[in-house]
Formats: sequence, C-alpha cells, structure tokens
Amino acid sequence: MTTAPWRDAALPADARVADLLSRMTLEEKAAQLYGVWVGAATDGDGVAPLQREMTAEYDWDELITHGLGQLTRSFGTAPVDPDVGARALARAQRRIAAANRFGIPAVAHEECLAGFTAWRATAYPVPLAWGASFDPELVEQVGRRIGRDLRAAGVHQGLAPVLDVVRDPRWGRVEETIGEDPYLVGTIGTAYVRGLESAGVVATLKHFAGYASSAGARNLAPVRAGVREFADVTLPPFEMALREGGARSVMAAYTETDGVPASADPGLLTGLLREEWGFTGTVVADYFGIAFLQSLHRVAADEAEAAHRALAAGIDVELPTVKCYGKPLVAAVREGRVPESLVDRAAHRVLLQKCELGLLDEDWRPEPEGPLDLDSAANRALAGRLAQESVVLLDNPDGLLPLAPDTRIAVVGPRAADALAMLGCYSFPSHVLTHHPGIPSGIEIPTVLDALRGELPDAKVTFAEGCGVADPDTAGFAEAVARTAESDVCVAVLGDRAGLFGRGTSGEGCDATDLRLPGVQAELLDALVATGVPVVLVLLTGRPYALGRWHGRLGAVVQAFFPGEEGGPAVAGVLSGRVNPSGRLPVSVPRLPGGQPWTYLQPPLGLAGEVSSLDPTPLYPFGHGCSYTAFAWEDFVGSAADIGTDGSYDLSLTVRNTGDRAGTEVVQLYLHDPVASVTRPDVRLIGYQRLELDPGAARRLTFRFHADLSSFTDRTGARVVEPGALELRLGPSSAEVRHRARLRLTGPTRVVGPERRLRCEVLA
Amino acid sequence: MTTAPWRDAALPADARVADLLSRMTLEEKAAQLYGVWVGAATDGDGVAPLQREMTAEYDWDELITHGLGQLTRSFGTAPVDPDVGARALARAQRRIAAANRFGIPAVAHEECLAGFTAWRATAYPVPLAWGASFDPELVEQVGRRIGRDLRAAGVHQGLAPVLDVVRDPRWGRVEETIGEDPYLVGTIGTAYVRGLESAGVVATLKHFAGYASSAGARNLAPVRAGVREFADVTLPPFEMALREGGARSVMAAYTETDGVPASADPGLLTGLLREEWGFTGTVVADYFGIAFLQSLHRVAADEAEAAHRALAAGIDVELPTVKCYGKPLVAAVREGRVPESLVDRAAHRVLLQKCELGLLDEDWRPEPEGPLDLDSAANRALAGRLAQESVVLLDNPDGLLPLAPDTRIAVVGPRAADALAMLGCYSFPSHVLTHHPGIPSGIEIPTVLDALRGELPDAKVTFAEGCGVADPDTAGFAEAVARTAESDVCVAVLGDRAGLFGRGTSGEGCDATDLRLPGVQAELLDALVATGVPVVLVLLTGRPYALGRWHGRLGAVVQAFFPGEEGGPAVAGVLSGRVNPSGRLPVSVPRLPGGQPWTYLQPPLGLAGEVSSLDPTPLYPFGHGCSYTAFAWEDFVGSAADIGTDGSYDLSLTVRNTGDRAGTEVVQLYLHDPVASVTRPDVRLIGYQRLELDPGAARRLTFRFHADLSSFTDRTGARVVEPGALELRLGPSSAEVRHRARLRLTGPTRVVGPERRLRCEVLA
Repeated sequence: MTTAPWRDAALPADARVADLLSRMTLEEKAAQLYGVWVGAATDGDGVAPLQREMTAEYDWDELITHGLGQLTRSFGTAPVDPDVGARALARAQRRIAAANRFGIPAVAHEECLAGFTAWRATAYPVPLAWGASFDPELVEQVGRRIGRDLRAAGVHQGLAPVLDVVRDPRWGRVEETIGEDPYLVGTIGTAYVRGLESAGVVATLKHFAGYASSAGARNLAPVRAGVREFADVTLPPFEMALREGGARSVMAAYTETDGVPASADPGLLTGLLREEWGFTGTVVADYFGIAFLQSLHRVAADEAEAAHRALAAGIDVELPTVKCYGKPLVAAVREGRVPESLVDRAAHRVLLQKCELGLLDEDWRPEPEGPLDLDSAANRALAGRLAQESVVLLDNPDGLLPLAPDTRIAVVGPRAADALAMLGCYSFPSHVLTHHPGIPSGIEIPTVLDALRGELPDAKVTFAEGCGVADPDTAGFAEAVARTAESDVCVAVLGDRAGLFGRGTSGEGCDATDLRLPGVQAELLDALVATGVPVVLVLLTGRPYALGRWHGRLGAVVQAFFPGEEGGPAVAGVLSGRVNPSGRLPVSVPRLPGGQPWTYLQPPLGLAGEVSSLDPTPLYPFGHGCSYTAFAWEDFVGSAADIGTDGSYDLSLTVRNTGDRAGTEVVQLYLHDPVASVTRPDVRLIGYQRLELDPGAARRLTFRFHADLSSFTDRTGARVVEPGALELRLGPSSAEVRHRARLRLTGPTRVVGPERRLRCEVLA
Repeated sequence: MTTAPWRDAALPADARVADLLSRMTLEEKAAQLYGVWVGAATDGDGVAPLQREMTAEYDWDELITHGLGQLTRSFGTAPVDPDVGARALARAQRRIAAANRFGIPAVAHEECLAGFTAWRATAYPVPLAWGASFDPELVEQVGRRIGRDLRAAGVHQGLAPVLDVVRDPRWGRVEETIGEDPYLVGTIGTAYVRGLESAGVVATLKHFAGYASSAGARNLAPVRAGVREFADVTLPPFEMALREGGARSVMAAYTETDGVPASADPGLLTGLLREEWGFTGTVVADYFGIAFLQSLHRVAADEAEAAHRALAAGIDVELPTVKCYGKPLVAAVREGRVPESLVDRAAHRVLLQKCELGLLDEDWRPEPEGPLDLDSAANRALAGRLAQESVVLLDNPDGLLPLAPDTRIAVVGPRAADALAMLGCYSFPSHVLTHHPGIPSGIEIPTVLDALRGELPDAKVTFAEGCGVADPDTAGFAEAVARTAESDVCVAVLGDRAGLFGRGTSGEGCDATDLRLPGVQAELLDALVATGVPVVLVLLTGRPYALGRWHGRLGAVVQAFFPGEEGGPAVAGVLSGRVNPSGRLPVSVPRLPGGQPWTYLQPPLGLAGEVSSLDPTPLYPFGHGCSYTAFAWEDFVGSAADIGTDGSYDLSLTVRNTGDRAGTEVVQLYLHDPVASVTRPDVRLIGYQRLELDPGAARRLTFRFHADLSSFTDRTGARVVEPGALELRLGPSSAEVRHRARLRLTGPTRVVGPERRLRCEVLA
C-alpha cells in the first residue's frame, strides 16, 4: 500500500492539502471548520464537552465522526493539574484522530492574554502593563515563554494578543489592551506575536477590528467610526503584527462598525486582510460570533444564512460551537444555498495550518514529552522583571518616595491585601476561580502588603482595608483614618477588581459609568488626605481613573495596572526604592471623570478647551512617568531641513544618567503635522527607545525618520505622504518637548506602501 | 439715463444678478461674501461694530466702502428697545447702501432659535419642547409669527432651526435640538422652516452637518461617524427641510467628521447639497468657522488658504468677520492662488438672494413700517399653547396628579422660583442679560411657584430653594425637608441653568460629565423622598437626566425641558389639572448616568444587556408620555401582507377617548426591520399623529406606509429598499406595541429617490 500524497511530508504543504481535500466528503470538510468547547474534568479522567449549553447539545461520539477542527480551552475551564490535563488532552486527540477516516487531530487552542490561562500557570502582568514597559524585547521573551508552556502542554494556538487600541477608557477590556496609541500597541503586540510564534504556537490577533471603539464603552455596542479612523488608528497594529510578527491567525471581532458586522465583512476579512496584506493563515470567529450575525446583528435570517455570510466574508473556523458551520452549513450546501467552494476555501486554510503544525504527519504524537512546570522560577523571574518595568511613578513632588526604611506606614485600601488585586480578568484565577471560590489559585501571589512588609523589615506597617472595591459601605473609613493618623505615611492601595460580565469593576463586560474610582474609594482617599499625613496613592487598576480631584494633595502617585503574580514585590520595590520606576503611561490619566471617549490622539479641535465646560487636557499625559534618578538629553543633532516626500532624516541625541543610581529613560519621538488635507492628531508617537543607564553613564541614540512615517489616509482613502511642514519632537512624554526638528517635505504627494511607514528605525 | 438691467424688477433675478456681477470689481464682489457683527448701542444712537475683537479691528467707513454682505445680530447683543433698534438698523442700512456704488444694503440676520433673540421679544419654548409637542402645525405657526416679527424689525434671515439629531444627551446643545429621532426632527424642523419662510424670512438650517455627534459630548469635539450613520441619521432632517420646507440658507457646521471639516468639504456642501439635493440658496459659515480651518482644524496654513478651502467647498458667506473672505481672499485672487470664478459663484448666490428679498430694487426701503410689539398677546398665547403641549407627564402611578385644590404643598428646588429657569441658552435673557445682570429681562416670565400659587388659590403653598443648581452647598436641605415634612405633597422643581460656555449646566459649551442631575440636586431629591411625603418631580432641563435612582419612589414625574415665558403657567396647569398633559419624550430618559452616547436608535447589539455592566434600556422610552384621560385603540385594520418593494400599505385604527375629560393621544408608527444587509435600528419612527379628543370622541386614522420609508443606506452607499420581512408597529411609545402589521416586501432591491421616503402620508 502506497502512502497517499497528503501523508507525504516531503511534498509541499499546498499539494498535500489539495490532495487531502479531494478525498474528503462535504461533512468531513465542514467538520474542520468548527471547534467545540471541551474541558478537562477536575478528576483528570478524560476530556469531555462539559461547558455551558454544549453539555446537553452534543453527543461527543457523533460530533467527532467526521473530524474536528479545533478543541476549545481544554485547560481553561476548570482547575486541573497541568500534567493531568495534558495527558487528558492527548487522549482526546487520539480519540478524535481515531474517529475520522484520515486520522486528523484537532488544533487545540487556549487563552494566553497574560500567560497560559491554566491552573498553576504563571500569571504575567496584563497587556496594559506591557504597554507601560515600553519594552518590546522583554515582551517578546514573555511571549516565547508562554508559547513554550502552551506547546509543552499540547496546545497549538493561543488566542492572543489583543491589538485593540483604546478609544474609550471606560471600556472594561482596556486592561487587555496595550494602550491608546497604535504605534505602541503595534510594536509591543508584534513582539509578543514573535515570541509566541517562535515557540511554534499560532498567535491569534484580536479583535479584528474596531471592537475597542464601542459607543458608550458598553462592551459589544455598535461602533461609530469612519474609514480614516479605522485605517489610521484601528488597523496599523494588526498590519504590523502580520507583516513583522508573522501571526498565523486572526479573530473576527464581535463588533459592527457603521452598520457592518466585522464577521460579515468581506472587504475587511478578505479584501484587506488577504488580498491587500497577503495573509494566508486562518480567520477564526470570536466565541459564538457567527451565530450573533443572526441574533445580535440580524444580517442573517437563520444559522445557515449566518454561516454563509461569515464564510463568504472569510471566517474559516466557528468557535466554540457547531451552531452554524455544523449541520446548517452542510444542509445549505446540499440545497445549493451556499457554494461548496466556500467550504473548500476555508477547509484548505485550516488543513494547511494543521499540515504546517505537523498534525497531518504520520509521526504525529499528542502525548506531552515530560512533566510540566507552568510556573517555573524562570517564568516568575520574567514576570517579576516585566512587573517592575511596568510600574509608573506618576508624581513624587517632594521626594516622599522611596519610603524611609524605618518609618511608620499605614497601608490602607481594598487592594492592599488581596492577591487577586494583582491579576486581570483573563488570568486563570480571575477568569475561572471566581466561580470556584473554594479552590486555591495554584500560584503564589504576594500582595502589596505582604511584599512591603518583606521589603521594609524595620518599618512599622499597619493595615486597614477601609472599604471594599465597589461597596457603598464606609464603616471601615474610621479605622483607616485612625491607622493613618498614627503613621508617618499612608500607602493607599486602591483600584479595580477584575471580573467577567459585571462581577468586577474591570474586565470583559465590566464597563464603567465614568472615570471616578469605583465604589467609595474616592471618599476614602479624601478622608485619608484630610488627615494631613502624606498619602502615597498606589493604583492597581485596569484602566486610568480621573485624578484631578487630588492634584497637588498627594505625596506620591504610583500607577501599576494589574502587574501579575510578581507585581506585589514590584510595587513594594518601587515604594522602598529597591526598584527604580521606569514605566510610562500607555494611556492618558484624565483630570475629570467625564468627557469620554477621549485619548491623546486628538486633532486640535479635540484639545480646544474654551468651547466646552469639559477640560480636554489630561492630568498625566500619554508617555509620562518619573524616575528616582535624573537624565540629561545632550548633544541633539537635528534642525530645520528640507527632505523629499520619500526622504529620510536622522535625529540623534545622547542621554546621560546624571543622578546617583541606575535608572531607565524612555526617549519618545512624536510627529506634529501642522497642516494637512485632513485633520491630524496634534502629536502621535512614531518611535521610542528604552535606555537603562548606570549612574553617570550615557548612550547615543539615533532615530531615522522616514517620510513614510508621516503618511495618513487622505480623503480618497489612499495612504499618502503630503509635502509641507512637519515637526519631529523628542520628549519624555507626549506633552513635553525636549528637542525638535522642523522639516519641510518637498516634492509630490506620494502614495506609500507598508515598507517604511509601519516602524521607525532606531540606531544604537 | 436708462435703468441698468440689474435694477429692472421686471427681468428674471438670474439675469439681473449676472448683469450686476459683470459691473462689479473684485473688491465689490468679495464684500458681498462677509457679514460683520454690529450691535445697536443701548442709547439707540446708531449701529456700530462694537462686539469683541471687531471693535478694534474695523474702521466702519472703510469696511463698507465696497459694500457689505451681511449685518450680524444688530438686535442680539445688547438690550435695546426694539423700535429704537429697528430705526438704528435702518439707518445703518441706508449708510451701507449709500457707501457702495450700487446702493446694495446688507442682509440683516438674527438668531431666532426659540423666538427673535431681541430684548422684549417673546421667548418661546426651546426646540426640545417642540419635539415633545409632536405638533408640527403649531410649530409652523410659531415659526410664522417669529418670521413676521423679524421682518417687521428689518431682519431678513434667521439663524434657525437647529436640525442636529441628538446623539449624546450629555452635549450642552441638546436643548437647541428637536430630539433624538431624525423623522421627528425633520418633520418638526420643516414645519418651523415653513413658518419662517412664509413670513419672507430666510431660514438657515444648522449645523450642516454632524455637529451633535461630537466625541465625549464635548462641544466642537471631532466626530466619529461613518457614512451610513451620517446618511441615515444626520442628513434626513436637512433634506426634508430643504425639499419640503424650502429653506433658503444652510449653515456649515464647526465640526469635523472622520478628519474632514464640514466647512472644507466640497462633497457635502456642493456635491450633496447642491448637485444631489438641488439647493440654490446660500451657505453661510458658522461664526468664525472659516478661520477655524486654519486655527482649529489646521487644514489651511493661513487665512487665504482657509478662504480658498471654504469657498471651494461651497461656503458663500463668512460670518461675522472679514478675517478670511476680506483682504486675504482678495489678495489671493490677485496673486492667482484662488480662481476669481469661485468668488463669482458665491457672489452670484448672495446677490440672487438679495434680489429675491427685494434688496436690489429701487423701491427698497429699510425703515420699519410701524411700532413693534415683539411680545404681543397673540405671541404669548401661542407660546403658552406650545408650552402646554410640550410638558411630558412621565409617571403618575397612583394618580397623585392633578393635585387636590386645597392641599398643603411644599414647592422646593432651585428652579421653582427663578424666571430664567424657563428659558434656554439662546433666549435673549440667557444669552445676553446674564452678562448685564442689572438689566431686566424685558418680558414677563412667571415662575412655576408664581403660577402654581395662582393656579391653586386654596392650597397652602410654601417654598424652600433647598440648594442651588450647581453649587455643592447643602445647607438649604434642612429647610426644604422641614417644609416638605409639614406638607401633604412636595413639588420638587429641579433642573438646569442655561448659559454659555460653562456659565450654565445646559447650553452652548455647557457639556455634562454624565447624566446625573447637576450639583447636589440628586441628594436634595433623596432627602425629600426620605421624608415619606409624596414627591412630584418637575424637571426644567435642557437634556434628559438619569432617573433610575428614584424609580418607583416618586409620586409623579413631570418633564418640561425649557418651556419659555409661558412655561410656568403651563407646568402649573398640568400640576393643577387645568392642562391635560400631552407631551411625548423627544429623547429617551435613561436609567443610569453612564453608557453615553446612547439614543433609542439602536440595532440589537446596542440593546444587548447581558454583555455589559451598563444596562442599555431606557427608564422612559422615546415617545413616552402619560395623560389624565385614557384612550382605546380600536378597529385596527392591517395584518400580514405581501407588497412589492415599490408598494404601499394602509394601516387604520380608531382612537377613542374613553375617559371623562378632553385629552390628546399621539399615535406613533415605528418600523421594525428583522433582517437587512446592514444592521438596522430595532425600531425607528416613520410616522405619527397627534389627536385631540373630547371625552367619548373618536377619530379614525390611516397611515399610508410606502416601502420607500423602509429604505436605508447599504454597503455601497446607495439608498435602497430591500425585499424581505418588515413589521409596522403602532404604539404610544417606541417601547410599546398596540398593533402590528407583518409585511413581506417582494421583488428586487430598489434604489429609491426622495419622493416617498422622507415622509409618511397620514390620512385623516
């Protein structure tokens, strides 16, 4: 018996898949186009479809008769020992392979927003903290390590990163994003993709596209956006992560923009993604998103029509259900309502990916190679390093920080002594264990209080919770005020509780009314400030909150977002001075709780203050962050110059650490375009570099600006560089200019390709 | 000496203007393209450029040498006796005419948002109250009366109506709009235009277009909107007011949508407005808006470029300054930077309008014909009638209203005893006299407290202010609570103070952080409710506020917006029962203060509650309002039917007043489109009829639905009727269905023209 061509690993993948497809029935092809939600049983005795409505809906044996495209979250839905889970997943894969004629296993996918979302796996800082690090190299290491852990456990695809650009900080999923600037999101997100993909795991860019812009910051609400905002703000991170990161999958967003659901938009999922950008991987649905075309978008009358619209638009895989791509799709093809060629197109992509993953090879083996340690010492060290780099010192006007080692410290607030305060919604403990409150998180998560006590053994540290995160009860204020009054300094640890769908103050479905601190935390802070004892405000939040109310009245302000399992020591290290803070804001901190949506990417009209009662200027601007040392920016080279609309220009400077301790500066390059044919943001980030410098040390840095970096989408929809004046601004934040070069672009308006517009070259 | 052709009233206007233009120098033509801000001196001794920066900028004699296009607000800027002002305006016109070679006077324009904005002129209810009346016939009468008063005073053009559709209730200018539904805004706004134009006054549709959608509800902030939202929500009222109302002027909005400023958008101001809609009148700038192209939009490098962009886009007249269309434009034409043909095009339109207004005729006379009474008894009666029709009874669960005649009433709240509480920002007293606090308003404005005392002479009425509108001071709570505790009922009159640019809680530039009641009024209401005495909440507001906090705890809720100078008696009449309330909500009243922007025009995705912590369902839906009588909806004729995509269908019903007093029902027709190629609002208003019925009386009503009313903008940008299912719903609000017809549209998808899609035919 000869080996069929599709089994021959020596043949090109395309040829193998073409051969395989030609042998498959319609049912077998369609079976590759969906994934279902399975979960490892906590007793480790197998993998079964146990989640939600699936339990009753499917007969597992019947389901896998023709094959199965994907397995959804075998680790993510219950606290199961990773080794037990991996072995169970392998058994399920053997069973799936054995059930279909070709022996094809499923692609197993998992969430990995801030770490492998499995029990006992490392909980890294959330993406918003990655943004604060301005450190793509470190994020790439994190991605690689997460990828290796996923791969070792038998998982092929990770449903991350989130590349949505923050458009409204009230949105609950801001914690899952990298920030409000497309360049920052693109560069950091691309680094994560590189890391994940370098470990052989398929990265999934989500949510494609526009999801973050929902009206009123209500999760899933319709998006109001025009084509230029979409092209210039929403899309660039995706394009960069595909072109530079090599991501092999994209998730279609739940959202609809200007009446067109992303999941039913061929212009987006095929025209732009594949034809213009050249993407060849798979497009997967967001969970239940195809059925939503019928139930929540109502652009389809039934499941078959929803399947048709999604398939025609370019979604290859339905997750985590067979509701549309299962029997309704097969029946519709048989009835001639859906062309079989659409099924073939999607199946080809799915099988091509399986082929590339080795899942069609005869030597495929699903069993894990050895015992798993998903929270190794190396993982924890990496999580700790990223946590440290992500803490932003917003203000320290009188040098209250670092704290003296032998001081009396009142630690106050609902986030000081709760391990879950360190984690975002998509960590395993927040995502799952909040539904299983009796089960331990499986990982060690020191709190800020724990860590501070360890950090300052000679200090007298007292603690009072003061209030809950979101409760209206103020009964605890008195004790918090008393502890503060008898101390030299108060460390108020306030913030969010991450959760799902209204069970938290941040996280998926936990959208904020406005940017006031949740519950009575603002009132608690008022009471603490009123004592006269200096207050250090530490924020563990999933979004920025309005702090104008306390401006000038706080001893120091530390913004830590959700810094992960090693975040407690990172924050405490900043407070003690062991860690020199180096984070920079990936989102603006507003003065006032209203006036949203607003981010720093405003054309002048969005900054005009006198025309509205709502002051649009932020309290702490995008890019802002303080250090315990000082830096001089010296020997700037760059001036007024003419360059062509296809020219480039180098700006150089030397950054010197003029203080007496090691520290990190983040040099940021912004573009100011004084006049254009459409309105442009007053400034936008086009380059940055993080520099770690010992005391007295200096480093020379050159930004090579290419004119293509000034391109934007014009009235005709083309991406162009226009002639005229430009200003390049170097500064430590979006609001402070240290050096500037005034360029004049000469020559014709040019339509530009992707080569040089996505990223600024930085020369060491 | 023969009369020049342009002076010959027997010739067609076009020919006269062509002749005139051929005789004019560039300077003379350009002089027709701007208006400047003049104000009648309070001593009545003349008209002079006295406002703001203009004072120093212009030499009046030099300014008018070549002519003058417009005179801005000669009445609107100072409290001058109308007769004195009219004579001063006439003298100014004589001077202008005498100064230029052709004897051409200026077009005098004024604000007339809710009445002629002059001292001692009637302050009608604000447009949001017009929307609440659902009574276009009455609004047309108001428009006619305002027009006559303007004309009598020598004013040719009124800068109203505002046809912006509410997209975010936090916006300060919501009070100036007619509501959140384009059909309501279109029909009511068109009625106002007809009235104004029937008096010979040029109506000016504003703000064209998109201004209400500013991000974050910050006045002037950039707009995020796509082409379909723009076409289907923003534009229809303008199209209707032009096609059906015959408005002769349009004001370009300050706004920019998706990066394109309206004032520099030829596609909007020429392509759509003139070429597609056939508009032949003038397009005027919003004040200073052309200069903003350089300073706030930065799509122009200097004033000449701003002039060029605006003129090319299609703005004919700069207001109220010569900053761009003055010397910079003339110089740019001379230098060849701007084609003179653009100046000619605009001058032709301006002169054509002057010709039609009789301003080029030899018998032109500017002097007023007789003494002016701008607040006549007839005006006041009309203002009172509209005020009565605009009061919305939101809730009266236990029949607490009407109040018993001999009860003890505590009238409480910062809006009960302030005459200015009745007026919006664009009334003369709010707009001007807040800067001149010593001067009386010039008109009689009874407060709710005054009127209630007159209305219920046998009641024991006490009063306590409780708190200010926006002050944080709660010292007055105690007295308010005490007055309430010793009464049978509390009437809490809360709401906004209208003002400009942060000097109020509603009005231009007074944008709200969220939809909490301003200041400590919510806390005052809490304290009043806590007494246990039944509370009637009366709201005099410029926007809806979130009332979910008090749901089920109030005796009754009355929403009156700003009901004008006769609003006090109207509100008191509703409280006493003399007036049977008949207003319906032109804007949704939300439960929660967050989640904005939101209006009722939501596709299903915007109504999905479980996916976000922010409940999107309103507390009181669009169209809602109660009555003191009851109505039966009988003998409905309409069922399931098939009609063609160019067909029509009649729905009939009889409405009977089954109560024992006269009252008014508003029958509303909504369209529900179950499946479409783009997402559609769950329901939207497509017809309505107000019915006044005596006790026992009945009236038969037929709505003739044409398929074109179901049209929308599809993915290609075409306005189409699609085949498929439709549901026509008759109800007393957008959330209640009394009768429905299920139609199936058959035949091909049709691209439709304007003939039958703009308005639903209602047969008596």
